[in-house]
Amino acid sequence: MGNIIKLNASFISYGNAVGKKEYDGPLGPRFDMHCTDDRYGKATWESAESEMQRLAFNCALAKKNLKFEDIGALFAGDLLNQCVGSAYGLCGCNIGYYGLYGACSTCGEGITLASVFTTHGIYERCAAVTSSHNASAERQYRNPIEYGSQRTPTSQWTVTGAGAFIIGDGDAGMVKIRAALPGRVIDKGINDCNNMGAAMAPAVCDTLVRFFRESGTSPEEYDLIITGDLGYEGASILRALMAIDGYTLGENYTDCGILIYDKRLQDTHAGGSGCGCSASVLSAYILPEMRARVYKRVIFVASGAMMSPDMIKQGESIPAIGHLLVFEV
Amino acid sequence: MGNIIKLNASFISYGNAVGKKEYDGPLGPRFDMHCTDDRYGKATWESAESEMQRLAFNCALAKKNLKFEDIGALFAGDLLNQCVGSAYGLCGCNIGYYGLYGACSTCGEGITLASVFTTHGIYERCAAVTSSHNASAERQYRNPIEYGSQRTPTSQWTVTGAGAFIIGDGDAGMVKIRAALPGRVIDKGINDCNNMGAAMAPAVCDTLVRFFRESGTSPEEYDLIITGDLGYEGASILRALMAIDGYTLGENYTDCGILIYDKRLQDTHAGGSGCGCSASVLSAYILPEMRARVYKRVIFVASGAMMSPDMIKQGESIPAIGHLLVFEV
Repeated sequence: MGNIIKLNASFISYGNAVGKKEYDGPLGPRFDMHCTDDRYGKATWESAESEMQRLAFNCALAKKNLKFEDIGALFAGDLLNQCVGSAYGLCGCNIGYYGLYGACSTCGEGITLASVFTTHGIYERCAAVTSSHNASAERQYRNPIEYGSQRTPTSQWTVTGAGAFIIGDGDAGMVKIRAALPGRVIDKGINDCNNMGAAMAPAVCDTLVRFFRESGTSPEEYDLIITGDLGYEGASILRALMAIDGYTLGENYTDCGILIYDKRLQDTHAGGSGCGCSASVLSAYILPEMRARVYKRVIFVASGAMMSPDMIKQGESIPAIGHLLVFEV
Repeated sequence: MGNIIKLNASFISYGNAVGKKEYDGPLGPRFDMHCTDDRYGKATWESAESEMQRLAFNCALAKKNLKFEDIGALFAGDLLNQCVGSAYGLCGCNIGYYGLYGACSTCGEGITLASVFTTHGIYERCAAVTSSHNASAERQYRNPIEYGSQRTPTSQWTVTGAGAFIIGDGDAGMVKIRAALPGRVIDKGINDCNNMGAAMAPAVCDTLVRFFRESGTSPEEYDLIITGDLGYEGASILRALMAIDGYTLGENYTDCGILIYDKRLQDTHAGGSGCGCSASVLSAYILPEMRARVYKRVIFVASGAMMSPDMIKQGESIPAIGHLLVFEV
């Protein structure tokens, strides 16, 4: 029995909500919703993050005139301690709820599990919802943003954004989810929490190499290979690591953390990160481009750095993961 | 399409590791491993928790002479910020990893997902692993244990323990996993983080009532209905809430948080809690008793309180969840 999971599911609908910086970036006009003060009308950053999840999910439902009761189960997670962005944001939907923690890889993990459930007829439709918020994540992982602390060149900027995906047995025009390969927890000894790209690249490389070997395919057979979110630093490390294993990532390779901000105009250093990064780029850019037949066969690897601030303070290094999915249209 | 998930999986093996207080309790001799100083040879409580997960998983594998490569996927989670107990504890297994966050309900969530994967032939065997540690959880949720802070009567004692379950297509003598019903996130306005039983009881009631209605069964048809972990306070509230909905929980109802400590001899107030509570009681007591035919048909509802200390400080109430499973032998 192989490790690749065969799937037969479709993205029935998707929605997203982002912050000001994301709206000001190159993908700005593609997002469904944005908020110019990142607060979404709430008194705390944590509640703003929950509100983004609620809005993204409601937006995805509304696009196809679906209701809460049309969804069999929710797979949701975020970066916050005890994943409160999701639990508070999706409370009240009255839908079976599976809480996930995969750090920035949560979007890929949720889509995999939702696709498994619908492929095997457990429920007709499931949803995967994830979020991150720059202000809630930065003060939890590093410093309150009011400090205006200086950032290192390898640090990534936590995306303020949420993405929601409704998955089920869709019609012919929809993007299909064909396969998944779960990531393994890989720790190569990186202990700089301001260089998550370096920590995550080996985990993504591990998943990609296992996928190409088991599937017998090679990188050039895909229109797009996109990781989310290694950023500039992690993406360049991934290219080098893949080359060691004999795989060349060409022009068809990019990263969600690279796409979401303008390197020249927006001061985000190594690019974007956070559960909301790959979720918002996937829902606002990759899937619409696939529906427009710009990309027909896509590998998406959602990557996550699974440390906590406590573990870094205790001198531990950073375990990471990369969940792979194959999309086709 | 109903909400109850039909399953056809077995508990192939299970293992656990606990702390001193758990070993001193009424189930003490039943646990596979214990450590008299709760440190498991590690320098930090967090690393001790990870070590318990590693040991519990290895113990479950060893009992059936299984190796890491015999397991298709791991479903794991814990209470710590960013779920580091699991990521660090299971790093190096080289097994596909799905990180979960369901607070104290994680054991039920993981067993459900592992059973879905093996029932539908995605992998031959999967594992669900969870843990909690009194010292790491108490200092994260409340106060460092060195403070010796006074505890309120409704507070529960976080169990130091980990449980691991290997799930697949077992032989006739093994305990079968027949059905699951995912919990919904329910928030009834409880905002006392020292009364998690009151916060969780409505969520467990919601799942139980939905299960009895959809399955057409009633509480007296089961040899044992066990929640984990409402403790004394939550269990008594659950009885009252169920009665309002027309269901009487009789002598066949108890709770993992009630079973694990001695109310008279051990100063744990409202009972045990934590991901490790239901995981260690299930693996050390319920499943062995089922194999001995003491209980033949069991409902297990793993309950979780999904708040974080930050949300409580911000004045928010506590969302909770209860994941139900039906076991038969």
